[in-house]
Amino acid sequence: MPNTTVLLVTEESLAGFIATALIATGMSQSDADRISRLMAEADAIGSDGHGVFRLDQYVRRIQAGGINTHPNIRIAQERTAMAVLDGDNGMGHLVMSRATDLAITKAKKSGIAWVGARFSNHAGPASLYARMPLAHNMIGLYVAVGSANHLPPWGGTEMLLSTNPIAIAIPSKSMPPIVLDMATTVAAYGKVKTKAQRGEAMPEGWMIDRHGKPLTDATRADEGFLLPIGGPKGYGLALMFGLLAGTLNGAAFGNDVVDFNADDTSITNTGHFIVALDIAAFTDVNSFKSEVDDIWSTMKSSSLLPGFDEIRLPGERLAKVATQRRTNGIPIHGTLQTVLNRLAKELNILPLT
Amino acid sequence: MPNTTVLLVTEESLAGFIATALIATGMSQSDADRISRLMAEADAIGSDGHGVFRLDQYVRRIQAGGINTHPNIRIAQERTAMAVLDGDNGMGHLVMSRATDLAITKAKKSGIAWVGARFSNHAGPASLYARMPLAHNMIGLYVAVGSANHLPPWGGTEMLLSTNPIAIAIPSKSMPPIVLDMATTVAAYGKVKTKAQRGEAMPEGWMIDRHGKPLTDATRADEGFLLPIGGPKGYGLALMFGLLAGTLNGAAFGNDVVDFNADDTSITNTGHFIVALDIAAFTDVNSFKSEVDDIWSTMKSSSLLPGFDEIRLPGERLAKVATQRRTNGIPIHGTLQTVLNRLAKELNILPLT
Repeated sequence: MPNTTVLLVTEESLAGFIATALIATGMSQSDADRISRLMAEADAIGSDGHGVFRLDQYVRRIQAGGINTHPNIRIAQERTAMAVLDGDNGMGHLVMSRATDLAITKAKKSGIAWVGARFSNHAGPASLYARMPLAHNMIGLYVAVGSANHLPPWGGTEMLLSTNPIAIAIPSKSMPPIVLDMATTVAAYGKVKTKAQRGEAMPEGWMIDRHGKPLTDATRADEGFLLPIGGPKGYGLALMFGLLAGTLNGAAFGNDVVDFNADDTSITNTGHFIVALDIAAFTDVNSFKSEVDDIWSTMKSSSLLPGFDEIRLPGERLAKVATQRRTNGIPIHGTLQTVLNRLAKELNILPLT
Repeated sequence: MPNTTVLLVTEESLAGFIATALIATGMSQSDADRISRLMAEADAIGSDGHGVFRLDQYVRRIQAGGINTHPNIRIAQERTAMAVLDGDNGMGHLVMSRATDLAITKAKKSGIAWVGARFSNHAGPASLYARMPLAHNMIGLYVAVGSANHLPPWGGTEMLLSTNPIAIAIPSKSMPPIVLDMATTVAAYGKVKTKAQRGEAMPEGWMIDRHGKPLTDATRADEGFLLPIGGPKGYGLALMFGLLAGTLNGAAFGNDVVDFNADDTSITNTGHFIVALDIAAFTDVNSFKSEVDDIWSTMKSSSLLPGFDEIRLPGERLAKVATQRRTNGIPIHGTLQTVLNRLAKELNILPLT
């Protein structure tokens, strides 16, 4: 019988549980703290497929030797306004928070900075990193090569591309920041995994099978592939993002991408990049933020097409979910509870409560 | 009776005709040369809605006082790796070729540079500027606020957004460069205008009317609006690109965008940005280009979905069309010939032959 209870946990207790689990795999307290805070934040902001949901997989990969728990993350290439980090096969969260810190520091001087990474790993939701520059009155732009190929080139059947997501975060004055976080496919593969774990069907249009027919059973996801947004356009974006976040950084792209859902040991050599733009270099920060507020209300108050009941801004749902979950708790669904309880037993740590 | 003949012209004679027309409006020889070369290049690479097709409209706007023929294009904001140009209401081609030159110069030092522009105008196809850094072994990335709003926010009916296009160009070694040039809508408005001028119907999915029904008659385009790629995702991209290319540069976005198809006199304050990435700052240029070749052939040789006869790389059609047109001539359709002949008479210059 499936477990249908929903456990509500605080972001702090969730982060604490994750950190304890990571420390049990041999990671240092400080690295475990940094990663666990980002993973719990992913759940707090509603990225259900990219937070604690991934913990079991991360631990399995660490235990199989597929992730370096004591990486020497270093700058491999550098100029004034750019760098490429070598993540030494560490957790993606460590590599990309370091990359983002570096981009912010460089952007303060140069006005803008672009920091890529290679030999990184899955780093959670794209919006985590795009949102980091906001606190410095900067705009963030993040792109990653996805950690498994589920997308063929347009018109093809070989899965040579991933969902290669983009996130862009722009601060406002009195409204939540505008945060776009999207896969270049109609649905991200994390959403497919969540559907499968919850035993829910996928809507038509997310995936097709190898004969081009719609695929809606999420548990059969490995029999088909994702569809790109706008057909050839989404394929084009996924391809370009892969070349920029992967190939340009010396990271995996195309045939070289390791399916980290199926393989726990091969080095993934995941690539990402983050761009930070210092708003003060372009214009007055306060005026800019006010104008973003104006754009927000112009969109929000504009008239509706029949069948719609509101216009949403990118990031609006994120902000609402975050407020709601930070007040009432983060829901952990039954199937995930079962997984985390088993994991706690295996690692000999206290279960999540 | 519509003129159904097709005139074939060389890129040089097309550029010469355009330059003569622009000089007749009062522009300097050197500015007219720069603009006309870019406009003829647009036709040579197959951007039929963004080259000489726009000449009549540009001339009309110049004569109405809506474009400054002697602009003082200047750097308004600057740091090491960025700048914002004030285009002084000059032709967009002048402003953005200057912006791209500056981005290339800055990227040589900083590794990467981002140059925005305000008080610019329509600049032709996005790929013109994204492709300029290629000759310097750089990658180009260009985004513009479109010059007329034809896209409502997702679920709305007020046209607050444009097709806000993106172009990314990445060099290869022995293959053509990979060049993505796409609107964030299913179809660019330039394609709608071309369909209308040629008397052709639009496919379903390009536009809907104000009741949400498909609109296929291109001559009725002003009764409906364009559809974004991937629904809310394309809306999100158009919004973010508008904030980055418009608002951040102090250029028009949202309600402030002037419909340059309907209004010949108001200053458009068009915004764009160009990013140049110096590949040598990231990795060995030759190895990178070889890897792009590998990606090209991997995609190209992968197996096909039923109903498709080839996999195309972004930029492949552009390269083929350019080769074909530079060999056999650029086709000028009958309706456009009629417009250009009338224009030549009005400006008292020799017609295009």
